[in-house]
Amino acid sequence: MAMKHETVETDEQIAERVRGDAAKQAFLKLIGAELTAVHRGYAEFSMPYREEISQQHGFVHAGVITAIADVAAGYAAYTLMPPNSEVLSVEFKVNLLRPGVGERFVARGRVLKPGRTLTVVQGDVFAIAHGAEKLVASLQGTMICKRHQVASED
Amino acid sequence: MAMKHETVETDEQIAERVRGDAAKQAFLKLIGAELTAVHRGYAEFSMPYREEISQQHGFVHAGVITAIADVAAGYAAYTLMPPNSEVLSVEFKVNLLRPGVGERFVARGRVLKPGRTLTVVQGDVFAIAHGAEKLVASLQGTMICKRHQVASED
Amino acid sequence: MAMKHETVETDEQIAERVRGDAAKQAFLKLIGAELTAVHRGYAEFSMPYREEISQQHGFVHAGVITAIADVAAGYAAYTLMPPNSEVLSVEFKVNLLRPGVGERFVARGRVLKPGRTLTVVQGDVFAIAHGAEKLVASLQGTMICKRHQVASED
Amino acid sequence: MAMKHETVETDEQIAERVRGDAAKQAFLKLIGAELTAVHRGYAEFSMPYREEISQQHGFVHAGVITAIADVAAGYAAYTLMPPNSEVLSVEFKVNLLRPGVGERFVARGRVLKPGRTLTVVQGDVFAIAHGAEKLVASLQGTMICKRHQVASED
Repeated sequence: MAMKHETVETDEQIAERVRGDAAKQAFLKLIGAELTAVHRGYAEFSMPYREEISQQHGFVHAGVITAIADVAAGYAAYTLMPPNSEVLSVEFKVNLLRPGVGERFVARGRVLKPGRTLTVVQGDVFAIAHGAEKLVASLQGTMICKRHQVASED
Repeated sequence: MAMKHETVETDEQIAERVRGDAAKQAFLKLIGAELTAVHRGYAEFSMPYREEISQQHGFVHAGVITAIADVAAGYAAYTLMPPNSEVLSVEFKVNLLRPGVGERFVARGRVLKPGRTLTVVQGDVFAIAHGAEKLVASLQGTMICKRHQVASED
Repeated sequence: MAMKHETVETDEQIAERVRGDAAKQAFLKLIGAELTAVHRGYAEFSMPYREEISQQHGFVHAGVITAIADVAAGYAAYTLMPPNSEVLSVEFKVNLLRPGVGERFVARGRVLKPGRTLTVVQGDVFAIAHGAEKLVASLQGTMICKRHQVASED
Repeated sequence: MAMKHETVETDEQIAERVRGDAAKQAFLKLIGAELTAVHRGYAEFSMPYREEISQQHGFVHAGVITAIADVAAGYAAYTLMPPNSEVLSVEFKVNLLRPGVGERFVARGRVLKPGRTLTVVQGDVFAIAHGAEKLVASLQGTMICKRHQVASED
């Protein structure tokens, strides 16, 4: 009966909850990534190219590409989780398809399979250059919902 | 006979090549990660905790944990690649075992299976707190060796 | 200029090449999987439920689900490889979304990013029961093209 | 307090529980895989080469290699789970390091990080030929513990 006390949120409440959570991530500020869209089962982050996030050849670092894919996918999962919860990454796998070359990078996360505890997600990162988008990485992973303990629960 | 012209490097030359390459990574400076050990088939990076690399709960961001695991594993592979080459991540998978809580984080990369083109690697990230180490993440991935083009080669 | 001598195949020649290769796989016969569709960048396998391919709870074994996802994804990649080549799996990651319960299982493989050496692929496995399909597993992986050695090539 | 009624098993009881569970897997019989060792946090399976489990080049199929890696890793996790539970694969990633060539194949699974719900595991598959072992595949994955429902539990 754990579901009983879970509030049904409006779309706007979900978006606000995700925005509030994302705003607390210092690392997203450090790399310049911003939440640009969010709705049930979907989240999108955008990040301009800067030299500070590059690797030895001047491309955006695979770790940064992975970070925004993880964040987009994680918040996509979080839109379907209850208000009194947190989302954490259990694991993810990333294929790096092309070098991270572009003026801007957009990560789009979506839910493949929601679940009470585990949610399976996918995330794509696109590089934008000269007005065209190219897929640079694809992530597939698992997110876990950590519910805030309420007194007397296990 | 492509191997014929590949210089045999000394241990010190390998270490210098890796150090030189790592020094060019702006993102490693941004997150405060430094190469602390390197030898054939192995590389180690160390990074202090800072609020700037944290996520919404104050733990080190999964993307940062992944980045240092990837870098350590990639340079472990690079130690076994020829001087006239670059290393790039093809793909990796990370299991996040514990929250990234600690004063310092150490990533240890090693080669599971070297190859002329593809090298399979593993990387572990440990959190250090109160003098004890805890494994917080394990990465398994594939690195590719990109040889600098020599005139008239395919 | 290695591309020069590679024959351009018709759609039917590609399909025949894939069918011929798949027919040589003894393991596919053992589990009862058959190629049911193939075109450039896509391959589909179908397999009826049988008790012999089940695990301890009577569901189709995760290893069998993975095998047909791998095969569908691998042959999707193979449609884009030249005639004088072989396809081999480098790595793959599978998320098991639901128990393998159904009368029949269909694996659909597609190419995410083709390449001369490495091709990144995805594969979905659906369980069919009472006329409805449910996604039971998603695979993301890397295939490698091994070209048959022609005299004097590296 | 859910732990209270969980029996503490002896090593022999754990081994018996795993053997009993593995004996119910029809697919393991089909591919000829047998449990050859099990203790807390570890399980080992062995399988002779047979033409029926091969792919188009006569090597053992990647799906079979993956299946025995998954099974060994899953039962390694299961040794640490309570008696009134089942183990299921959530996800795994496999790197195929060498062709599956050999007279016999041995899969060794171990626990990287146990947990009440999720257990992170690794599994290595070795090919044995002419008395020597070669690592042919490495798996890293996540197993979930499904507890049998006891009346009135959530």
